Amino acid sequence: MRYTIFGESHGPAIGVVLQGVPPGLTVDLEAMAFDLGRRAPGKSPMATARKEADQVEFLSGLFQGKTTGAPLCAVIRNTDQHSSDYAATRDLARPGHADYTGFVASRGCGDYRGGGHFSGRLTAPLVAAGAIAKQLLAQKGVSVGAHILSLGADLEDTDLLDLPDVTPELLHQAALRSVPVLNEAMGPAMEAAILAARQECDSIGGVIQCAVLGLPAGVGGPDFGENLEGELARALFAVPAVKGVAFGAGFALAQMRGSQANDPFCMDGGTVCTRTNHNGGINGGISNGMPVVFTAAIKPTPSISQPQATVNFRTGEETTLTIKGRHDPCIVPRAVVVVEAAAALTIWNLLEGAHQ
Amino acid sequence: MRYTIFGESHGPAIGVVLQGVPPGLTVDLEAMAFDLGRRAPGKSPMATARKEADQVEFLSGLFQGKTTGAPLCAVIRNTDQHSSDYAATRDLARPGHADYTGFVASRGCGDYRGGGHFSGRLTAPLVAAGAIAKQLLAQKGVSVGAHILSLGADLEDTDLLDLPDVTPELLHQAALRSVPVLNEAMGPAMEAAILAARQECDSIGGVIQCAVLGLPAGVGGPDFGENLEGELARALFAVPAVKGVAFGAGFALAQMRGSQANDPFCMDGGTVCTRTNHNGGINGGISNGMPVVFTAAIKPTPSISQPQATVNFRTGEETTLTIKGRHDPCIVPRAVVVVEAAAALTIWNLLEGAHQ
Amino acid sequence: MRYTIFGESHGPAIGVVLQGVPPGLTVDLEAMAFDLGRRAPGKSPMATARKEADQVEFLSGLFQGKTTGAPLCAVIRNTDQHSSDYAATRDLARPGHADYTGFVASRGCGDYRGGGHFSGRLTAPLVAAGAIAKQLLAQKGVSVGAHILSLGADLEDTDLLDLPDVTPELLHQAALRSVPVLNEAMGPAMEAAILAARQECDSIGGVIQCAVLGLPAGVGGPDFGENLEGELARALFAVPAVKGVAFGAGFALAQMRGSQANDPFCMDGGTVCTRTNHNGGINGGISNGMPVVFTAAIKPTPSISQPQATVNFRTGEETTLTIKGRHDPCIVPRAVVVVEAAAALTIWNLLEGAHQ
Amino acid sequence: MRYTIFGESHGPAIGVVLQGVPPGLTVDLEAMAFDLGRRAPGKSPMATARKEADQVEFLSGLFQGKTTGAPLCAVIRNTDQHSSDYAATRDLARPGHADYTGFVASRGCGDYRGGGHFSGRLTAPLVAAGAIAKQLLAQKGVSVGAHILSLGADLEDTDLLDLPDVTPELLHQAALRSVPVLNEAMGPAMEAAILAARQECDSIGGVIQCAVLGLPAGVGGPDFGENLEGELARALFAVPAVKGVAFGAGFALAQMRGSQANDPFCMDGGTVCTRTNHNGGINGGISNGMPVVFTAAIKPTPSISQPQATVNFRTGEETTLTIKGRHDPCIVPRAVVVVEAAAALTIWNLLEGAHQ
Repeated sequence: MRYTIFGESHGPAIGVVLQGVPPGLTVDLEAMAFDLGRRAPGKSPMATARKEADQVEFLSGLFQGKTTGAPLCAVIRNTDQHSSDYAATRDLARPGHADYTGFVASRGCGDYRGGGHFSGRLTAPLVAAGAIAKQLLAQKGVSVGAHILSLGADLEDTDLLDLPDVTPELLHQAALRSVPVLNEAMGPAMEAAILAARQECDSIGGVIQCAVLGLPAGVGGPDFGENLEGELARALFAVPAVKGVAFGAGFALAQMRGSQANDPFCMDGGTVCTRTNHNGGINGGISNGMPVVFTAAIKPTPSISQPQATVNFRTGEETTLTIKGRHDPCIVPRAVVVVEAAAALTIWNLLEGAHQ
Repeated sequence: MRYTIFGESHGPAIGVVLQGVPPGLTVDLEAMAFDLGRRAPGKSPMATARKEADQVEFLSGLFQGKTTGAPLCAVIRNTDQHSSDYAATRDLARPGHADYTGFVASRGCGDYRGGGHFSGRLTAPLVAAGAIAKQLLAQKGVSVGAHILSLGADLEDTDLLDLPDVTPELLHQAALRSVPVLNEAMGPAMEAAILAARQECDSIGGVIQCAVLGLPAGVGGPDFGENLEGELARALFAVPAVKGVAFGAGFALAQMRGSQANDPFCMDGGTVCTRTNHNGGINGGISNGMPVVFTAAIKPTPSISQPQATVNFRTGEETTLTIKGRHDPCIVPRAVVVVEAAAALTIWNLLEGAHQ
Repeated sequence: MRYTIFGESHGPAIGVVLQGVPPGLTVDLEAMAFDLGRRAPGKSPMATARKEADQVEFLSGLFQGKTTGAPLCAVIRNTDQHSSDYAATRDLARPGHADYTGFVASRGCGDYRGGGHFSGRLTAPLVAAGAIAKQLLAQKGVSVGAHILSLGADLEDTDLLDLPDVTPELLHQAALRSVPVLNEAMGPAMEAAILAARQECDSIGGVIQCAVLGLPAGVGGPDFGENLEGELARALFAVPAVKGVAFGAGFALAQMRGSQANDPFCMDGGTVCTRTNHNGGINGGISNGMPVVFTAAIKPTPSISQPQATVNFRTGEETTLTIKGRHDPCIVPRAVVVVEAAAALTIWNLLEGAHQ
Repeated sequence: MRYTIFGESHGPAIGVVLQGVPPGLTVDLEAMAFDLGRRAPGKSPMATARKEADQVEFLSGLFQGKTTGAPLCAVIRNTDQHSSDYAATRDLARPGHADYTGFVASRGCGDYRGGGHFSGRLTAPLVAAGAIAKQLLAQKGVSVGAHILSLGADLEDTDLLDLPDVTPELLHQAALRSVPVLNEAMGPAMEAAILAARQECDSIGGVIQCAVLGLPAGVGGPDFGENLEGELARALFAVPAVKGVAFGAGFALAQMRGSQANDPFCMDGGTVCTRTNHNGGINGGISNGMPVVFTAAIKPTPSISQPQATVNFRTGEETTLTIKGRHDPCIVPRAVVVVEAAAALTIWNLLEGAHQ
């Protein structure tokens, strides 16, 4: 199921084309709307003031409520653009943003308004596509759920690797919260931290942890192009602001000894399991039947309203930039469902490949 | 330049097929041998006792010393196999290894000897292919070099992000050392830590940091399939034992504020630069002209000679396994050049794409 | 430049997503409209009575008249659907059509109205994409033009292989005619043959010949995935009704002797040429600098208004079907520009690859 | 199952890497040898005098006689090279050959000896790979068989489309003949025509017809990249000397009326069938359950021993070339199994895709 995301923040529409959708899936539009709502801005003072209905229109591939197997194109019209916010500073490289690199790659022809094709808004069609992948996975007993593992420098949620058992319900509970955490008590502290950053004209990042539950052993492969870790990472790094991806205990594994890092195998009612899950359910690029657990590091939103040193990349002059416009002081809560979407699309593809 | 690695640890040969090699490259076989030597085992008490000459035979694609543009197949014969080391325990899942997942994925038909196709030995042809990519990159002024950023729990080398300037020479100096570090003084401590782990029948991991120097701005793209971070990660996770990949300050970015994480732009003699490089030379999936810097977390070698709890995956019995055979207590020093190879192949492909 | 065509004949819209469009192309919308007009129905009694404005809306990838390099999505709304024409016979397999195969492949969930995703209407976005490819090719001095080589059993146009010189102007003249032929005198006869077939409740097919002019030597390769003949054929067979593709003298080559079929090489002002072009400008899957010439066999339109024996594929009953609705007695004249589009997209991709 | 063919006619070896081979197939090496024997030269005065044992060595992917699922590399060493035959004329473009185009594409660095990577000898590993695909297909009840439909200007075998029933046995009988025809009586006439061409220092071509039997309805799709006709053609045009590919009645369809060309549907014991098979078992790019039948036009061998006008592409001088060396006056008989191999690999991939 190949997905192509298209659109620009201030263009007529954004959307996705999905190829290879299995025919016959009755798409649960409410579930898709729920996920789009989790990503949508404007719900709280924590997020950008831009309001978008994010109404999905299906141009193709859906007939009488079911997928047909033909390419499915879903579009979301853009409605609440304030393009004039961007015209004055269009040639100034916002630090941490893709203005300059986009300028070079597009030979100066890119749509600069609102970040153009680089905008986080492009994650909306990804979430729509991910909702379809989740529904396909659900038919095979596989679920995907994520939460905020840590926010900023010191706020931490429960680590899925520390739980004796991880269930889809547990992760669904997190999804229902305005700040998607496992430990509900952490919500207010995280919300406060985000608002504090905004007040200080600054922003914060965090780490999202995601689990794929119900995935059978044997999915993926060791090689480039089929590796479960590599393919997940490839999809995750295409999500704006992701700067690190790690599996299981991730970078902490590099500090462990083999005797700590190795997950001893055991039997659980006829099924091979591991007693710990430091390897995140993956050995040699292949799922081992345990929850597939990974983390994605989300950098702090680069749009901050402090003055910042930068350059005008057309004139080559150094200057100072103070970013106007509507921006999130922290996109981590909204990115949780985006991480799920990228993971669900990847897992579906590898799971299908594994059946061959 | 698509690469396909083939072979098994105890089969007749391992190798690589490279498609899309530009014609006319005079392959520097000495440079290739130098890189293969950096990966080779047996140089010191730090590594496995298996000795392999790693002599590369070119079956195709090379004529009169130059690449022809036709598919290039390079093979390395296996010579020093001790297959009997593995027969007795073939159905016992070594914790942290791919025995069980490989068994499931191959429906019990995999070559189990010495890890088969999952063996770290398969990185030798990857290094050979990477050597060709490096030589192609050198013609465009691009170099790739890596070093051990940290080993085990507390040994740290100089962070490339902390250096005012990173040069190819600096990284080449590291490559010449038996323990490839920037700060030569760290070598003996790291070597001692590896030997200590072996004596304790244990193993250690580490973090490798890699820099791509001379890469122009504009390489890559924001989308899935062209994203510089995503494509690098995809290649790196296909390297055995890599469990995390991060760019620039990586997971530490998630703890920073935007005002810290953003890299202010400045001009340097007519070129747009950044004053810091927390984003690792990449904005929006596209190179910005600064060094592309990333880290890869290498887990401790799963093969340790302590008794470990496990299962027989054919019979479903729980049992205890004590691994025999020849294994590295730490593969981090040998993995440095492998990380370079995976990066060089990826960068070459994206660089060529950028020229279109 | 990867293209994905989406949509159904009676859905909300049809369209195309183009990835890898070079930035900075000022899209000539008039040229695109000209090509869409050549494909459009309703111009004459020769074609279906369905009228569509085929107005292209760009949802993304175009900014201030220029391509941005981001994915370009172009859609055409469907407006003149008569879906009720199809409901009564939805489970009857029209002979020569994809109703039955589409039913099986979509597990009964396809959009059957007007042929759904199988409709020839889907060639409109292909023509739009092809127009962009043609404009890119024009910047490199390459042009693509086609004509009707033969219609029905005995009407023949001039063979490009018989001409001492083929020019873009010659092919452009054909494009301006209501029946696109080189020999203008053949137009009325062909038009008469089409109308005669309609009157007899029947249909006719034909052979389209296409030339790619200005293509330098060295484009393509011998291998699967890069072969100029193979890649062109792959694109052409995705055009509905194409049942054969051949290069140069094509199937007639199989009847020649080597001494006839071989094209002797000669020099023309410093350039290597061939005296004849039986091989259609391609040797070993690579262009040789002569015009690339190929033919595509177009079968007669399967929708004819005679009673035909068929089955109801849901009930398994044999029955007789008389097709209603609006259909072309011959789609060859409209398919000429579609063949050009498929060729232009392919040639652009291989030409870019050849520059690497 | 992706295949990559590598090697040069006079290099150390030729071979193939197969990725995505399902694990657990016990490879029938005798069946593979049988197919390689059908392609091998030297059996009769009809073919080149070059003798090669074509002994396949498996470097990887096969363990204890079974495929492992890891990449399978099979190589065939070159042994009977007469490289000196080529040195004198290395810069003279043999008409109809890829010497000149290969020179341009390789920037003068190609291996020119014996045609290098363009040599028909490269079809040997394709046949080996095809043998594996055939064995996989056999497990699903699908078989692939081809024969010579016509040779030269006037020798014709029975057309599969004219037979009331086509069986695997019928095609196997053809495979056992020195000239693979259905109508055994045609064998001697064809052999005589080949020998006559040789005596006249000339060569002849022909048309190969191939059938895929037992393929269920629903395999393939209408779109670029999944289309059964497009994917088969893509593979077939990568076979040297193929200049045309057509399905069912092929180019003759273009001369039919719709009432003739359409295949009426009927029921046969609960299965949907067609009464005729002018469309070659494919509607809309998808199999319809009837035999998939196609033809490939093979041009006459370009290597003929008559003097031919040509150029020296290094010096730009016009000259005359008389080709020495060992060449087939007709490669059609040997190409029959190559066509089968290319088809089998393609069908397997689409069949697997159809199961998703």
